[in-house]
Amino acid sequence: MLSTRTASNTTAPTQILQARNGHSYAYRRFGGGSALPLLCLQHFTGTLDNWDPAVTDPLASRREVILFDNAGIGRSSGDVPETVAGMTAHVMAFLDELGLTRCDVLGFSLGGMIAQQMARDYPSIVRRMILVGTAPRGGEDIMHLEKPSLAKPLQDPQYRGYSVLQKIFFAPTTTSQAAGAAFIARLLPRTDDREPPSGPNVAKAQIAAFREWERFTGERFAGLKGVRNPTLVVQGFHDEMIPVRNSYWLSENLPNAVLITYPDSGHGSLFQFHESFTRQATAFLGSDSTFAPY
Amino acid sequence: MLSTRTASNTTAPTQILQARNGHSYAYRRFGGGSALPLLCLQHFTGTLDNWDPAVTDPLASRREVILFDNAGIGRSSGDVPETVAGMTAHVMAFLDELGLTRCDVLGFSLGGMIAQQMARDYPSIVRRMILVGTAPRGGEDIMHLEKPSLAKPLQDPQYRGYSVLQKIFFAPTTTSQAAGAAFIARLLPRTDDREPPSGPNVAKAQIAAFREWERFTGERFAGLKGVRNPTLVVQGFHDEMIPVRNSYWLSENLPNAVLITYPDSGHGSLFQFHESFTRQATAFLGSDSTFAPY
Repeated sequence: MLSTRTASNTTAPTQILQARNGHSYAYRRFGGGSALPLLCLQHFTGTLDNWDPAVTDPLASRREVILFDNAGIGRSSGDVPETVAGMTAHVMAFLDELGLTRCDVLGFSLGGMIAQQMARDYPSIVRRMILVGTAPRGGEDIMHLEKPSLAKPLQDPQYRGYSVLQKIFFAPTTTSQAAGAAFIARLLPRTDDREPPSGPNVAKAQIAAFREWERFTGERFAGLKGVRNPTLVVQGFHDEMIPVRNSYWLSENLPNAVLITYPDSGHGSLFQFHESFTRQATAFLGSDSTFAPY
Repeated sequence: MLSTRTASNTTAPTQILQARNGHSYAYRRFGGGSALPLLCLQHFTGTLDNWDPAVTDPLASRREVILFDNAGIGRSSGDVPETVAGMTAHVMAFLDELGLTRCDVLGFSLGGMIAQQMARDYPSIVRRMILVGTAPRGGEDIMHLEKPSLAKPLQDPQYRGYSVLQKIFFAPTTTSQAAGAAFIARLLPRTDDREPPSGPNVAKAQIAAFREWERFTGERFAGLKGVRNPTLVVQGFHDEMIPVRNSYWLSENLPNAVLITYPDSGHGSLFQFHESFTRQATAFLGSDSTFAPY
């Protein structure tokens, strides 16, 4: 364990945890306080470097924030699983090796699917969940990068690296795109100790996991009914990557969930409205009630 | 104790305002602080006495809260208009007579429709809006009391007066019904200076207004696009009286709205989760941002 911890994702060192399953996992752990640690699970192709300090750092003022690269992402070893369940197994191996038996979870997009799987399969480990820009199993139109609204910017050579993120994570308005530019600017100050960006194999495996997550058997969304963890569901309603109706389904079928939707924003609503989001998340995580409303 | 508090709907005197249009309006005005007054517009058949002190009183700690009985309700004179626009005209006459040129508005159910009409027709008078358990013009399944889920409790002789409110404003769960009983208990301490309850003619006219509000011409919800007031939309997602999809439409079509939905609750979600609701409402009303997220 490193002795130096700075409470920002701009400066926190990347650590490598060697787990008993033979995998090594890249992660960052920073902040402190009396609250339970908050495990942050990342979006499609994102690494530790894609977590906005404007989101992680305020949350780290009251608790440890743990950012995690799943298998095959960044410097974490192995192949990217082609199912959410497979990714969840890596999260559990990581937590087990850390000795963490209970935590809160912030799952963004793909990370929100893993958080749901965790809550369903290991309800005693997850206390409260924040699900941002994500979808339930059996959800619709999850990360269909081939549809024109996404394929066009993704294939446009003028958008590369972070600029494509700005384009597709934010709504096509002046205000949202400006928020996207500010988000990108907040990622740039970390110049050392960065994770290698994800390549096409990562994308391919994660897309396979999305396709598998869209499938369901039996009663649709029935799996959510048993997840009683207090949950905060958040989404920008211009989300082209995972449409907001998926968050409606989450909040309608999870028995103990509050939904917040943000205007003028897309997939990256938590980054656009980072002040509101961290205030809401802090209040939600700070509640000891068995009810989700906070 | 409640009885010694002045800034409370339990004890605030009912006042009568004589307006230049010949109408007299019953209202209560209490609380204080530097924030703009908050005008509260009530639900179907509700009077001043139906405002939960657990909602009004915390809000009155930073601002004046003004509760209003529209024409034909309680001790307000005249007939109940059969359109939301007609009710809005009475609100405007009341504000004009009070000399209020700018305020925040909390509109619950029918009151939320009036609030929308005000924001659309008089955008400079309304600063921020909170719309709870309501629907846009062109919304669906608005207060169809003839449908079995509502007709059954409404026609059941075991439910009368406040007990029918508990039944239909709260979800059919032990926790929500208990919250409903607590809500009713908070309405009872006001024993003097109460408004006469609404009779069948009030209900008939207001139902006519709901039917008119369901109609639309041209592009559905287009009228919301021009309403740029920061808006907080709130709904319990078990709402049988005005289903939650109406709040989805509101937040998707109002350009500057945040949506919060509450679990395990119905039409009276603001009363069930009064601590959360007043905290969220206070933060929302306290924001000076041009953006709704707070």
